[in-house]
Amino acid sequence: MVRSLQAGYDLVYVYAGHSMTILQNFLSPYYNNRSDEYGGSLENRARLLREVLEDTCETVDGRAAVGCRIVADELLGAAGLSNNEIADVIGMLGELPDLWDFQVGDWENDSATSRFSPEGAQEEYVRGLKALTTKPVVGVGRFTSPDLMVRQVTSGVLDFIGAARPSIADPFLPRKIERGDLEDIRECIGCNICVTGDWTSSPIRCTQNPTMGEEFRRGWHPERIAVRGSDAAVLVVGSGPAGLEAARALGQRGYAVSLAEATRHLGGRVRHEAALPGLAAWIRVVDYRTQQLGRLDNVEVFRESHMTAEDILGTFQHVVVATGATWRRDGVGRWHAHPISVAPGADVLTPDDVMTGARPAGRSVVLYDDDRFYLGAVLAELLAREDYEVTLVTPTPSVSQWTANTMELVRVRQRIMEAGVRVVTDHAVTAVHEGHVVQECVFTHATAELPCDSTVLVTARLPNDVLCHDLAARGDEWAAAGLRSVTPIGDANAPSTIAAAVWSGHKVARELDDPDPTTALSWRREVTELAVEEA
Amino acid sequence: MVRSLQAGYDLVYVYAGHSMTILQNFLSPYYNNRSDEYGGSLENRARLLREVLEDTCETVDGRAAVGCRIVADELLGAAGLSNNEIADVIGMLGELPDLWDFQVGDWENDSATSRFSPEGAQEEYVRGLKALTTKPVVGVGRFTSPDLMVRQVTSGVLDFIGAARPSIADPFLPRKIERGDLEDIRECIGCNICVTGDWTSSPIRCTQNPTMGEEFRRGWHPERIAVRGSDAAVLVVGSGPAGLEAARALGQRGYAVSLAEATRHLGGRVRHEAALPGLAAWIRVVDYRTQQLGRLDNVEVFRESHMTAEDILGTFQHVVVATGATWRRDGVGRWHAHPISVAPGADVLTPDDVMTGARPAGRSVVLYDDDRFYLGAVLAELLAREDYEVTLVTPTPSVSQWTANTMELVRVRQRIMEAGVRVVTDHAVTAVHEGHVVQECVFTHATAELPCDSTVLVTARLPNDVLCHDLAARGDEWAAAGLRSVTPIGDANAPSTIAAAVWSGHKVARELDDPDPTTALSWRREVTELAVEEA
Repeated sequence: MVRSLQAGYDLVYVYAGHSMTILQNFLSPYYNNRSDEYGGSLENRARLLREVLEDTCETVDGRAAVGCRIVADELLGAAGLSNNEIADVIGMLGELPDLWDFQVGDWENDSATSRFSPEGAQEEYVRGLKALTTKPVVGVGRFTSPDLMVRQVTSGVLDFIGAARPSIADPFLPRKIERGDLEDIRECIGCNICVTGDWTSSPIRCTQNPTMGEEFRRGWHPERIAVRGSDAAVLVVGSGPAGLEAARALGQRGYAVSLAEATRHLGGRVRHEAALPGLAAWIRVVDYRTQQLGRLDNVEVFRESHMTAEDILGTFQHVVVATGATWRRDGVGRWHAHPISVAPGADVLTPDDVMTGARPAGRSVVLYDDDRFYLGAVLAELLAREDYEVTLVTPTPSVSQWTANTMELVRVRQRIMEAGVRVVTDHAVTAVHEGHVVQECVFTHATAELPCDSTVLVTARLPNDVLCHDLAARGDEWAAAGLRSVTPIGDANAPSTIAAAVWSGHKVARELDDPDPTTALSWRREVTELAVEEA
Repeated sequence: MVRSLQAGYDLVYVYAGHSMTILQNFLSPYYNNRSDEYGGSLENRARLLREVLEDTCETVDGRAAVGCRIVADELLGAAGLSNNEIADVIGMLGELPDLWDFQVGDWENDSATSRFSPEGAQEEYVRGLKALTTKPVVGVGRFTSPDLMVRQVTSGVLDFIGAARPSIADPFLPRKIERGDLEDIRECIGCNICVTGDWTSSPIRCTQNPTMGEEFRRGWHPERIAVRGSDAAVLVVGSGPAGLEAARALGQRGYAVSLAEATRHLGGRVRHEAALPGLAAWIRVVDYRTQQLGRLDNVEVFRESHMTAEDILGTFQHVVVATGATWRRDGVGRWHAHPISVAPGADVLTPDDVMTGARPAGRSVVLYDDDRFYLGAVLAELLAREDYEVTLVTPTPSVSQWTANTMELVRVRQRIMEAGVRVVTDHAVTAVHEGHVVQECVFTHATAELPCDSTVLVTARLPNDVLCHDLAARGDEWAAAGLRSVTPIGDANAPSTIAAAVWSGHKVARELDDPDPTTALSWRREVTELAVEEA
């Protein structure tokens, strides 16, 4: 705290939240089993927090504000720190800090995804606490809607709005509200891709904001972008998340952009996925970009426009191919490197089939999830709620194993169990027959038959790369046709997350006509120099 | 590679091993399904490796040696790259690099622990390859025994011995062999604690070598240590891994050390754990240190010497308390913060009971593992092999979840399944009754009765801190008695791994009589300065 002051911080925090600090642990009847003056009664359990707050305020001595972040409810039931006890703590210590900052539960609870928790979900725990102190209070709840923010302030729930994930999606959120540019807000979709960087020790990424984490490294400003480097005409093929972002950012640069979409609808995979249970907020990826495209006179959108190499040659100087990917029907995924045996008469569906309206022929369905992120469990939930008898089989110990990194693992399992999905972990599907699949234990390799009418294979995707290959095959015609570049982006280049697709679309737009051809491979980095310091 | 030469490296590697590189993936019939000149026949699959080796040798041009690390068998059965195919690859490319470096399977297979794989286990895959090239060959296999190393060289299996983990345990391994100081070798115990740093993004640690990772940070040389800072008499209480290392390192510094052990045997927890299935090599933690202590005239070992505060006051200036920890009998662990209900008549055992010879009263046993590292499954295996009917219940999705970080997770499950242990994952034991336990689903919180005669609770440990508290209570007598410090170390301070205990014992020895009282909290670190570089 002394160092924070030396570094010039305006606000110093005393932290008693997120189940992370000894101050909360002392407060909590769940964690604190002391029998001395720091345990037992709430006054005793709050003693350490009081002392630290008093010492902090004394040391800070007005040079910075002192905030106290505190859990408003531990969400541990009767055993934990309740909302009522926190009210009593605010009653006791309310005037000590300059600011109270409320949150709920541990990080997993506090930063729930939109799939499991609506915007502003912490209001019930925070309402009423403000009245117990004259000091301002701040709270969180994945706020992206200015209306809801205003309502929480005017109704006396909060004085300040806290918004970490919404600020990752749009660092200029407050400015846009201030200016009334509400339609320009790039709203957080609540997917927690940002959080996965923490759990995988990798750089932060944001589905909505491709510049996140690239501000210094690549010099990408969240709002500003260089003007176009030429008068080239650019075609973007495909309007999924990659194509939409490429067209938007190229349009922002001033290029003459044509966005060609084969179907009647913009959005690609996001349009389909946002229609699945719990994922409605994901449509913001499409909504924000179509809204922005509508204002760009230099971007023309062509729907129901399937593009061939023939259509392209002679018309455009640059082609960005964002044609997406297709889910495999052969079982290849993380477990199987080679196609599994599928009987010709077996009823097999892919996620693409289900998302475009197809349904299993019979009631009893095995869904084999070797993708390991969200989609398998989401489709299992969808089918179970439509009264299919669903068994989810996965080679991992958990369902939707990778959602451990979005902090959804427990909720995913709870939700599909509630929906009646049967779960078989630690098994791979090795063959699909009429009337059953063969499942193999990943430890013993013992196999068993699992009866079912239909099978849904959620395993891996292949890029839709026909157009790229067709154009490459006619490479000798490019120069004469004035074609200078063809760049596959997003899932059409490498099937991955929506965040990766948006990033890929942004990157191609940033780098078009870059005078330095090495830029595409380079980024600025911190160079560490070895120095020695005794701490 | 060009940069390696610029940096002055003597050896440049082309890597086709550990299932990590495209060179191995191209070689492998499992991963390579190309239909061009880089796929199909072995000659085609080896084409990329050949080209990269040729280009590397041409570029290096004698300025460094070029080694090629290659997988000697992918261990993927008929679908993978077999030992025979690798022999053919060496036949084709054998003279290209200056050195061949063999390993087996992926990292999990290559760096198996001593629990699952003996020293030198790769010999069967490597034997015969040397004859196919005139270039020297190196191989690995957790080699710690000079005899085995010599045999592999003299019998023509290898020219060089590769040893990563053994060099972590003893960086001076080659020097000690060269000098004939074989008894001074600090042999790797094969526990893979070193590997856990990689998987948890934390600093490397070694069970045998506490200086590992501290060479720069704390200035700890693996062999050298400062001479004593005073003529103080030091008592070390307890001869587990922490106490043994403290006594050894204090003895090396020249202090007059008394090591008091309450029982007849040195070794503490290691002596008991090394007697369990698969953990025999762990006794090296004790053997190395008792061997070293035997040479130190200034260290006196007292067995069957239980120490009280009364014994200590007036005799020693410094006391190091290494009295270990005791497994809890109340179910408190990672899942339960408070004791669970245990019926008075229920037959409940702790790991300490089992390791000191006690056995369940009935044949049907529930072992509840909420410790989540190795011990639960090891004890389940022990009891199952003694014909108990064992059900292992754990709140995690996997058995011995933390062994994911030692790369043992799959083998642990396979071994206990082979031993006949029944497994219930994702459930906590919430109560122990006569004739059954209550298990609760961690997702739904639904409870069910699980019948059993006896229960083994493997949950958490509490420090054996009576001596510390007794000495603290008599703090006003210290000065008169000449007592200057009492330091709990190892499990007596904070129950953890054996590696943490050894480190703790080493640290207290390094820091005794340190003239700078802040040293105990400090370490050198790299200070990063922000610089900007275009890559």
